[in-house]
Amino acid sequence: MTEKEKITFNVDKEKNFSKWFTEILGRAEIADLRYNVKGFVVLREWAAIPIKEMYLVYERALEKKGHKRLIFPSVIPEKNFLLEKEHVEGFAPDVFWITEYGKGEKLEEKLALRPTSETAMYRMYSIWIRSYNDLPFKAYQSNQVWRHETKATRPLIRSREFYWIEAHDVFATEEEALQQVEEDMETAKEVLFEKFGIPLIFFKRPQWDKFPGAVDTYAADCLMPDGKIIQQPSTHFLGQNFSKPFNLKFMDRDGKEKYAYITCYGPAISRIYASLIATHGDNKGLVFPFKLAPLQIIIIPIVVKDKEKKIFDKCRELQKKLSKDFRVEIDLSEQSPGDKFYFWEMKGVPIRIEVGQKELKEKSLTVFRRDTNKRIKIKERQLLAFIKKSDKEILKNLKEKSKNKFDKSIVSIDKLTEVKKAVDSGKIVRTKFCSIDKEGESCAEIIEKQINAFVRGTRVDKKEKPAGKCIVCGKKANTVVYIGKTY
Amino acid sequence: MTEKEKITFNVDKEKNFSKWFTEILGRAEIADLRYNVKGFVVLREWAAIPIKEMYLVYERALEKKGHKRLIFPSVIPEKNFLLEKEHVEGFAPDVFWITEYGKGEKLEEKLALRPTSETAMYRMYSIWIRSYNDLPFKAYQSNQVWRHETKATRPLIRSREFYWIEAHDVFATEEEALQQVEEDMETAKEVLFEKFGIPLIFFKRPQWDKFPGAVDTYAADCLMPDGKIIQQPSTHFLGQNFSKPFNLKFMDRDGKEKYAYITCYGPAISRIYASLIATHGDNKGLVFPFKLAPLQIIIIPIVVKDKEKKIFDKCRELQKKLSKDFRVEIDLSEQSPGDKFYFWEMKGVPIRIEVGQKELKEKSLTVFRRDTNKRIKIKERQLLAFIKKSDKEILKNLKEKSKNKFDKSIVSIDKLTEVKKAVDSGKIVRTKFCSIDKEGESCAEIIEKQINAFVRGTRVDKKEKPAGKCIVCGKKANTVVYIGKTY
Repeated sequence: MTEKEKITFNVDKEKNFSKWFTEILGRAEIADLRYNVKGFVVLREWAAIPIKEMYLVYERALEKKGHKRLIFPSVIPEKNFLLEKEHVEGFAPDVFWITEYGKGEKLEEKLALRPTSETAMYRMYSIWIRSYNDLPFKAYQSNQVWRHETKATRPLIRSREFYWIEAHDVFATEEEALQQVEEDMETAKEVLFEKFGIPLIFFKRPQWDKFPGAVDTYAADCLMPDGKIIQQPSTHFLGQNFSKPFNLKFMDRDGKEKYAYITCYGPAISRIYASLIATHGDNKGLVFPFKLAPLQIIIIPIVVKDKEKKIFDKCRELQKKLSKDFRVEIDLSEQSPGDKFYFWEMKGVPIRIEVGQKELKEKSLTVFRRDTNKRIKIKERQLLAFIKKSDKEILKNLKEKSKNKFDKSIVSIDKLTEVKKAVDSGKIVRTKFCSIDKEGESCAEIIEKQINAFVRGTRVDKKEKPAGKCIVCGKKANTVVYIGKTY
Repeated sequence: MTEKEKITFNVDKEKNFSKWFTEILGRAEIADLRYNVKGFVVLREWAAIPIKEMYLVYERALEKKGHKRLIFPSVIPEKNFLLEKEHVEGFAPDVFWITEYGKGEKLEEKLALRPTSETAMYRMYSIWIRSYNDLPFKAYQSNQVWRHETKATRPLIRSREFYWIEAHDVFATEEEALQQVEEDMETAKEVLFEKFGIPLIFFKRPQWDKFPGAVDTYAADCLMPDGKIIQQPSTHFLGQNFSKPFNLKFMDRDGKEKYAYITCYGPAISRIYASLIATHGDNKGLVFPFKLAPLQIIIIPIVVKDKEKKIFDKCRELQKKLSKDFRVEIDLSEQSPGDKFYFWEMKGVPIRIEVGQKELKEKSLTVFRRDTNKRIKIKERQLLAFIKKSDKEILKNLKEKSKNKFDKSIVSIDKLTEVKKAVDSGKIVRTKFCSIDKEGESCAEIIEKQINAFVRGTRVDKKEKPAGKCIVCGKKANTVVYIGKTY
């Protein structure tokens, strides 16, 4: 790397996203892959702060809708884990087991490091929930889970330890549980798109692609710049599949004991952060919505020798004033102003304030917005108003851009022969398909083998009724599905 | 339990703290001990919310003082763990080991579930830190750690999985590292006492009671209502003990490579929560500082049949207004107002608002403060001002009460024969002692065996110079130490 390359960042995100993503993770100090356990990465400040902020936003949204916050142990005894058959079959290959402590002493019972917490939580739920008065019972925890992934791991996207929220809700009736699934999808949109600017579509997943133990799975798909789909929050209608083995019964109004209905919901915050980086970044580096940025404002002194002190003083005065409400720093390093600009643009700082001799004299400030790359001069007394306005405008701007790109990526196609070209060029294909029930699986397998793409399911936000034949088998098409390459 | 006992809570906290603590954990839904893995407990909403709030306060304090936020993997490869001899000896008996995944496949290398993260973090630090320009390097993570405790576990106080912050800071010089130790102690006081109202004293621990691998350990002691001491945040000067095995070197200004100096600091948030409950609670139940309360305001409709709707509407209007800034609920259950009062007092809600017919007519509200048990009438328009004022006053009141009690618990004693009576009656004994270096250990062992109490070390906030003889061996006393029973 030349000196200049060390300072500037210039990778074509659209043409070579994989390179862009890997390079920005290192350069912006987001993740470090050099930790000496395979599949585990260190998340540095440029991940740890946005992930914390994203957690706070999501938690607030869940609490507003009546979810209690809980903290469960991260270990699950083997006997709990084995109770639901499909669940254990689905997760068993990925579980890390704790078998010893100290200097090789064996534990009485093997403990699973939770790959997800159904089997930890529902046992306690069955103790807590006694009657219809205790329902609905809605709760979440913010935690990490561990999975010994066999697929290739990628930082933030697929790691052997990742950070998520899991909400587990219990209802007296199937109807209420299904309403919760709707609410969960709504919450995902409110948070991912409205607050983070990441567009998504919710699909009802085909029966062969369900969460192990679920009756039905609904999952959000987002788009990466290389045209591949990344799954984001999913919500699962578990029916009574878990309440039976975990004996989660309640006394109903009619005096009868009944098994409860359960839903579970899992937004993976560290993975959503991957989407955030990928969705908003550009060839110069990171771009953040103002509220999520690890550093929100950078102040750059444009120093002229004999005015040095006055300029530094002004910078410090601004920092002091702004640091009550924002994450703000002054760059006092010995780099040139230009190099500082490049550096903090790469790091995605949403607002830059430049303070030089001219600004001092005019009681003005030069301000720069990372999302638009526009630089303007404002009066110093307008600064707070400018920041507040920018906060809103940046999010609006990022949402428009990302939504526009996302919408354009969907194409309707009628012939199987044309699907490959479309998905290879980064499109999500909308097409006619026989069924997302069991009988459609063989058609999905053909798509998977021939095109290396996947049937994501049927849209939840629209009723789409096909007229015509399944693109694969030629039988009557009962559904409109979406097909794409995936992470 | 009778119906009345279910509603009221009345356990003498001072006389029978152990019973009080156990009962309030269950009754207020703080912790559930019925999880089926020994030493692991479920933390319910009444723990999960205050713990989150306490984390936010502590993290803000650390970030203000220049700590970067990081997220490290929770697993540590065995080879890292074995590098520092004293450290591994100290922690090895307590480590949980992951040895398998899936259906009994062996991992290539055993992984420790971190009991603390020195050996995870310093390996990466040695990659990141290259020159004096990278120093000081100050970072923290908020995480959980696991220890297979052999001592009896108690929820929040000593569990096999607990929640803490660990800050690990690296410096070019010993002097700067020792300054960091001072800063860490200052931060603990700022947070634990100033924000949470928990009094503490920092002691330099005797050499025989150090963190494994440390040169010196400084730890805060707080007092429980039964007169036993509970250790809270500790900060450790590690010197170069870890930088050598982890090869944490930097190029200094003089062009020479040098080993760095490290400090580490560990406030255990879940344990601090135990102190919070124990310090402020009373015979009626929990008492919280306003900012940390899981529920800050409870609204109770005092319903008169024909005015029902108007009263409920007013309650909802108040909730809507207040819920922007506070955690607030209306109790719409079918209990009597009196039972509701008892219940929410037991749960420690700092402010209660009563809305009845009279209040409606007068545009007033009856408000109650949990810390003083005082009930007054205010005009509705004064509500926000009342809440803000109460927030400050409650904390001030709780601090005064707890500080007063703490100060009174310390007694100066000159005769070994009198120490037992004092510590048995819940006092912390201040006395003359030969030395907290290695040569004093045999005297400390005598105190431990005869009195079942422990030498906590020498005060950090005062220089105390003894004139006279060691209370145990009668040799010259070089230090003033404090002795107490401990958790």
